[in-house]
Amino acid sequence: MASINDQYPISCPFCKIAQAYPPDPNHPIPQSPDPEKVDPQCHLILSTPHVMAFLDILPIAPGHILITTRDHYQKLTDLFPPPFSSFSFNPGPADDWASRRQASIQRASARDLGEWLPVVSRALCKVTGIEDWNVVQNNGERAAQVVPHIHFHLIPRYQEGRRENAGKGKVDVGMLKSWRMFGRGAREELEDDEGVEMAGLLREAMREEVERGGGKVKL
Amino acid sequence: MASINDQYPISCPFCKIAQAYPPDPNHPIPQSPDPEKVDPQCHLILSTPHVMAFLDILPIAPGHILITTRDHYQKLTDLFPPPFSSFSFNPGPADDWASRRQASIQRASARDLGEWLPVVSRALCKVTGIEDWNVVQNNGERAAQVVPHIHFHLIPRYQEGRRENAGKGKVDVGMLKSWRMFGRGAREELEDDEGVEMAGLLREAMREEVERGGGKVKL
Repeated sequence: MASINDQYPISCPFCKIAQAYPPDPNHPIPQSPDPEKVDPQCHLILSTPHVMAFLDILPIAPGHILITTRDHYQKLTDLFPPPFSSFSFNPGPADDWASRRQASIQRASARDLGEWLPVVSRALCKVTGIEDWNVVQNNGERAAQVVPHIHFHLIPRYQEGRRENAGKGKVDVGMLKSWRMFGRGAREELEDDEGVEMAGLLREAMREEVERGGGKVKL
Repeated sequence: MASINDQYPISCPFCKIAQAYPPDPNHPIPQSPDPEKVDPQCHLILSTPHVMAFLDILPIAPGHILITTRDHYQKLTDLFPPPFSSFSFNPGPADDWASRRQASIQRASARDLGEWLPVVSRALCKVTGIEDWNVVQNNGERAAQVVPHIHFHLIPRYQEGRRENAGKGKVDVGMLKSWRMFGRGAREELEDDEGVEMAGLLREAMREEVERGGGKVKL
């Protein structure tokens, strides 16, 4: 029997990914997620109740990663966590249960984005051998946002025309590419087998980072 | 008498700002900070124990803001918060008090960056009238990092050659500028009086955001 989701398909590609890969709170780094749960394939490396990370299917450079919120917010301003962490919290009469819950989820999502950006960055550097990279988050059409669901790009910046990094990381990045800023014509589709290999290495590196960090999580 | 800091001046400009404007935990948005505590002037809009925000002195567009960690870390990978939030934390023998304290500060810094990015973004949109903007964080020379201290750029993207946003925000942005990506030659120095006006409006907008968000902080 067709589910309600088959009848009313989700149009946001990142929401499709969120639905296809529900979070496992004990395994923020998924063990061996099936890339074919969505079309085009998704090479998932992080899946928590609030954030996800996966490879960009139109990488600007090899190893180009996206970190997104799990829930759908278009721009960073839609993710509005009231920063009352260190202050007294006195909800007013307008603060009903539902809106406080929503605010709590938004706040956790914003904090988790901040918390996982360094961890995913470390895995990216380790696997590709790069030392320089950009983190870019675009809000709105004039800012080059394409998918209307908050996402941070992690874009490795390889040395142009040189192979000095080759061999330092675990991935043969082939012809090292210069950094090009969202020139859509210049981006090439990620090959499925390259995605599988890269995502597997990234998940392995992230597990090491999390364990090294004292997390001692069951992975 | 000269202090030890006069004898051994800090070379990092963001560390100078951190030292000149110590945090007031009850007032994350400073009340009326003196821009002349540092040279060149600093137009501060946020100052917490872990993060700061101020205007870029070489704005790519009017309202260009930087959000930084208070402590000195060069790249995002140096800010390594072990993400053991929802997991059991079993410190090993190597986890001494000092390294655990350091990890705790790093983690709080990463989370606070995530938490304040939406709040500062909302203030930026409100004050300038823009709806589109980029968040950019550069790691390393090849990624166009200039100051070796973690910072996120918030870069408003005005409609090129049009004035449709003029009047919507509180600031007359003059000739609206197109978004240019870190072309150093294209950037103009921020005028001190413009900085004072813009920072004052941003602080006011941020106070409203924090209060609206249920914070009820004493500001």
